[in-house]
Amino acid sequence: MRIDIITVEPDLLRSPFENSMMKRAIEKNLAEVHLHNLREFGFGNYRQVDDYQFGGGAGMVLMIEPIAKCIEKLKAEREYDEIIYMTPDAPTLNQATANTLSLKENIIILTGHYKGVDQRVRDKYITKEVSIGDYVLTGGELAAAVLCDAVIRLIPGVLGDETSALTDSFQDNLLSPPVYTRPAEYEGMKVPEVLLSGNFPKIEEWRTEKAYERTKSIRPDLLDE
Amino acid sequence: MRIDIITVEPDLLRSPFENSMMKRAIEKNLAEVHLHNLREFGFGNYRQVDDYQFGGGAGMVLMIEPIAKCIEKLKAEREYDEIIYMTPDAPTLNQATANTLSLKENIIILTGHYKGVDQRVRDKYITKEVSIGDYVLTGGELAAAVLCDAVIRLIPGVLGDETSALTDSFQDNLLSPPVYTRPAEYEGMKVPEVLLSGNFPKIEEWRTEKAYERTKSIRPDLLDE
Repeated sequence: MRIDIITVEPDLLRSPFENSMMKRAIEKNLAEVHLHNLREFGFGNYRQVDDYQFGGGAGMVLMIEPIAKCIEKLKAEREYDEIIYMTPDAPTLNQATANTLSLKENIIILTGHYKGVDQRVRDKYITKEVSIGDYVLTGGELAAAVLCDAVIRLIPGVLGDETSALTDSFQDNLLSPPVYTRPAEYEGMKVPEVLLSGNFPKIEEWRTEKAYERTKSIRPDLLDE
Repeated sequence: MRIDIITVEPDLLRSPFENSMMKRAIEKNLAEVHLHNLREFGFGNYRQVDDYQFGGGAGMVLMIEPIAKCIEKLKAEREYDEIIYMTPDAPTLNQATANTLSLKENIIILTGHYKGVDQRVRDKYITKEVSIGDYVLTGGELAAAVLCDAVIRLIPGVLGDETSALTDSFQDNLLSPPVYTRPAEYEGMKVPEVLLSGNFPKIEEWRTEKAYERTKSIRPDLLDE
């Protein structure tokens, strides 16, 4: 899978891709991530990429021309399955979307910054808009990193133990049950006995019950879906 | 505001804090962010911080003892308003939570990794659990960066133009209206005339209408709140 990220802050995005799971996926050639500095497509000596918004108001808007140049260049090199724009005013990312995107071959992720991009970029180029949640970030960079993490870890071979991703929260619309590790007792706090019993059917039953309880108490909306 | 982040991947978190808004907030002494490598509190020569889960199953669990040591050390140095654990099985971050957290003085953010932390850490130390959305990430590191971005940008003085944060999506439960910048016409695509009219009450009316339309079409749930 190849991901091209278009951003005004490529340096902000370096360390997430140079560590941990995403680093290993890239080293194993299971994912390829390219950061494109939008400023290289900007105007004049200052490499201008944004301007005031028409109609007035605070906050700068990314102009269509530099973005168009960058996207057209990439599209001339290969076919893309999706051109995604990270923005809070879009459908919210969920595990199903991450699963679907993990099957794609080439995607572009455009990250907004300041007040966002000129609406005409969205009308002309964007095939999918994604929000990571109902809160505002300074730019779409961290949102893009989050999307990449959620997607890349699902590519077969990326996680050491494939069953690990399948038992995560949300893959079955239930939150995870509580987990415990050594020591069995810590300052008087004991691990639930069933987990030490070796009775695996009983353990599975306990975990399903706890997952259901936790979902019902914290996120009852997930049970309605 | 001081934020202490406890993580097994401190390097993953460097570039988000060394660029853009968060870098400037730190340089202006409006925010202070400290990364603590959990491994420094680990056991033995390998600095072990995780172990297999009781009851079996894929994925490692972060042990209570190294985390307890790190948290106790920090708590001995100052009082914390919140000790937050980033985990998908928690209430979802929204703008109201970001607003509330931006008023705190000292917070600790514990980031999970692998299958998460021993439940006893959550029972004993954690005062608030936060998910950034209904998807699974490799670790809580990017989630912590997202939370910090959402919170730090709200601290007065961090954003150049304070009205900029107030007109963002979600501050009034509406998504943002479309924005446009130069050129007024690009490959036949024109900016809506009203935005070029100079008639500001009319522009405001148009923006409110578009914000409402967009919210109704993409996120009708926000209108019910």
